[in-house]
Amino acid sequence: MERQSGTGLLRIPDGTLPRRLARSAAAVEGGATPNAVVESWITERNLAHRHEVRRIEFGDLRQWGFDDVTGDLRHRSGRFFGVEGLEVHSDYGPVPHWSQPIINQPEIGILGILVCEIDGVLHCLMQAKSEPGNVNGVQISPTVQATKSNYTRVHGGRSVPYLDHFVDPAPERVLADVLQSEQGSWFYRKRNRNMIVEVDARDIGLEVPEDFRWLTLGQLHELLGKDDLINMDARTVLSCMPAGIEGTEADAVSDLAAAVARSSEQAAGSLHTTTEALSWITSRQTQHQVRTKPMPLNAVRGWVQSPTEIAHELGLFFTVIAVDITTNGREVSQWTQPLVRPHGMGRLALFVKRVDGVLHALLNARVEPGYLDVVELAPTVQCTPENYVLTPEADRPPFLDVVLRTRPEQVLFEARLSEEGGRFHHASSRYQIIEVPSGFPDTELEDYQWLTLNQLNELLRHSHYVNVQARSLIACLRGLR
Amino acid sequence: MERQSGTGLLRIPDGTLPRRLARSAAAVEGGATPNAVVESWITERNLAHRHEVRRIEFGDLRQWGFDDVTGDLRHRSGRFFGVEGLEVHSDYGPVPHWSQPIINQPEIGILGILVCEIDGVLHCLMQAKSEPGNVNGVQISPTVQATKSNYTRVHGGRSVPYLDHFVDPAPERVLADVLQSEQGSWFYRKRNRNMIVEVDARDIGLEVPEDFRWLTLGQLHELLGKDDLINMDARTVLSCMPAGIEGTEADAVSDLAAAVARSSEQAAGSLHTTTEALSWITSRQTQHQVRTKPMPLNAVRGWVQSPTEIAHELGLFFTVIAVDITTNGREVSQWTQPLVRPHGMGRLALFVKRVDGVLHALLNARVEPGYLDVVELAPTVQCTPENYVLTPEADRPPFLDVVLRTRPEQVLFEARLSEEGGRFHHASSRYQIIEVPSGFPDTELEDYQWLTLNQLNELLRHSHYVNVQARSLIACLRGLR
Repeated sequence: MERQSGTGLLRIPDGTLPRRLARSAAAVEGGATPNAVVESWITERNLAHRHEVRRIEFGDLRQWGFDDVTGDLRHRSGRFFGVEGLEVHSDYGPVPHWSQPIINQPEIGILGILVCEIDGVLHCLMQAKSEPGNVNGVQISPTVQATKSNYTRVHGGRSVPYLDHFVDPAPERVLADVLQSEQGSWFYRKRNRNMIVEVDARDIGLEVPEDFRWLTLGQLHELLGKDDLINMDARTVLSCMPAGIEGTEADAVSDLAAAVARSSEQAAGSLHTTTEALSWITSRQTQHQVRTKPMPLNAVRGWVQSPTEIAHELGLFFTVIAVDITTNGREVSQWTQPLVRPHGMGRLALFVKRVDGVLHALLNARVEPGYLDVVELAPTVQCTPENYVLTPEADRPPFLDVVLRTRPEQVLFEARLSEEGGRFHHASSRYQIIEVPSGFPDTELEDYQWLTLNQLNELLRHSHYVNVQARSLIACLRGLR
Repeated sequence: MERQSGTGLLRIPDGTLPRRLARSAAAVEGGATPNAVVESWITERNLAHRHEVRRIEFGDLRQWGFDDVTGDLRHRSGRFFGVEGLEVHSDYGPVPHWSQPIINQPEIGILGILVCEIDGVLHCLMQAKSEPGNVNGVQISPTVQATKSNYTRVHGGRSVPYLDHFVDPAPERVLADVLQSEQGSWFYRKRNRNMIVEVDARDIGLEVPEDFRWLTLGQLHELLGKDDLINMDARTVLSCMPAGIEGTEADAVSDLAAAVARSSEQAAGSLHTTTEALSWITSRQTQHQVRTKPMPLNAVRGWVQSPTEIAHELGLFFTVIAVDITTNGREVSQWTQPLVRPHGMGRLALFVKRVDGVLHALLNARVEPGYLDVVELAPTVQCTPENYVLTPEADRPPFLDVVLRTRPEQVLFEARLSEEGGRFHHASSRYQIIEVPSGFPDTELEDYQWLTLNQLNELLRHSHYVNVQARSLIACLRGLR
């Protein structure tokens, strides 16, 4: 057949992108911002952004209050977020029916990282940002972290720097753009728009305000291993970075790096084909049933409200508190708000093993009441061990015991990482990537499956597949060398 | 880096599948079932499956009744489906706020096609099935069409033939397995599991019951062009068939076939890269807001209930009716049920154009209240023109006028096709694929985008992307030669 006359309109993906990402990931010494400077920058930003956070009574919240009828805790404007009740029926886990407080934040925010080639190496524009719930001061955050309330300026604060690059970007400069869920035990169907947009140095200029620095992917991978330094929003956006970060087998600096590189290549193969992996996910979506129904906060059972907190009667799960924040470095200098304060230290562990030299990770199809669809893929283990002290042995999460008796040489990655400090108070969890022998018993548990990075990267281009905790660990996994 | 010792566990996708699908699609003369036999088979099955459908009053429904409090119409068992109310707030379309009756069927059913190589050519096992709402008698249906109520035998009927092949298939024999939505104006968050499973002739035997026949993809593509013959469930499953059906440019029998083949090849390029297409979908999900809230059926405004129907006060949209069915060929021989009877003949049109010889289709990111997520991709035009007689010109659907004045030579495909006859009464719509010039003004309407078959095939591996009307048209488009 004769081809119609060409008009030159057809396009194919940028074939140079994987190599450009790999080069940035290899630049562990940094480029525009030397490593030595990063540390002093953080120290200095910590001094510039002092947060004083003081617990107060709910009655002392300004602009926030409990609804007379439902007892829901809301902002007077109806925006930001609310704490409401949720009734849950589920066939997953040991408890089939419960009600709980949950954060309802229906607006979709933007989490965006600008990237730019500087001296031939891609850099990410990162922000040192302090949030009221942080265990420490500033953490390294995406270029932009904006709720709709932020960028429509409900609170009358200053405009969000660099936001314009994400509101209506030139399509061909977008490297990633996908709605991703957040914690389904704490949020009701919350999603944020995870975006990565490339700009040219000549268009943006490389001079940046004091809160911003250009960092390579290699630097970010190193910094992910520091406790409570790369914030949750940065981790989830980094997990959505296109394939290529993992480098190539030829350039690998270690056996592990080679296994990571091969894991990201479709041609290397996998224990399950992608069609099989998708079929497994479909079978889990179909198998599990979860019915949720929003309910008034004051009708939630098993939770106790005092002037200072809403807590589970057994002290489990989390507590809703109120705080007063005074800061010298944020859009507005003083405000009050509720925060959710988790009980106990979460444990997140992703098991990996090498199969014919290709790294595979063990994902768990997990039901959480706040997911839009039924299940999302979670790390191998995701729990707060303290919540299980009253739980019979048989009902404890699978593999938790393996995590608790892991030998140090099995741990490929470990750090304490924070959840979002704008909503959660001192929510810091231990994240680990644990290598198990290739002979690790292939579980017959049908909610678990071994997937390659190639498969996970592909799933991460879409919504509804990978939960925020797994995304954090995948961001760390992709940087392992 | 040295590769770890191989264990032979790694697998790659079946590289022969695209060629095998192409061969089946080229077999338009049939194989196991010659074309001449298909016609007589349908005629004979029509005689064997006589449905007598008689409209009755709601009060004459057995096992079904209106809830005393909510007025919802439900089966006494709580299963099958219910007709409830839905309150909708949306920023899409001319009407920002309304309430309506809607079908709630939370259980996920299975729509499955078994495929098998017979004399080296893949055949699909299709069923001649009669449904009470059909405008005619039997239609060609998937191998299996089973609600959960079906296969747990709530109504005490006979077992569903071939269902076992879909309940727990060997993972490597699954060609497609994905949850797909159904009509979001009529169903609240309904999804069915669309499955295609391959079996070996020696395992299944090629003798089939009278209601079943083995047909090639080429035969099915021809039959799709006949009015009301391939049913909706078969069309949606066929749309999920993996890439390859479209054939290759080298084997193309016409310019059109070559444009279809190139459209299915990633390497041929596209007007927008897949990253850009996904970003566009994300932007539409973010842009549009739709809030829905289930409500009691008796609180729905603008609808009028009589002993025989629930209808819109202006006679628009659809009517809920009750019917009594007597049949000689179904699991049970006599029953009553509600059906939804759409008002007017729907018009569904997919615009296609060739860009550098690569076929592109114009999809519309459309809000419907019953979608789980905010938007799904619909055909270029999807409407019932009669519902717009009262609508000002400016608020009528874009491109409807182009459809209404299309010249015959632009029409690549046209047939009247039925929606699901188990829920809808005489719901038959005119489906068209219309070729527009490559110079067709590239609309600045941000809810529309041109996509290739390669991109649509990729989206169809996932839930939440392509609506059921577009899936029907894509199944037809993939067979164009």
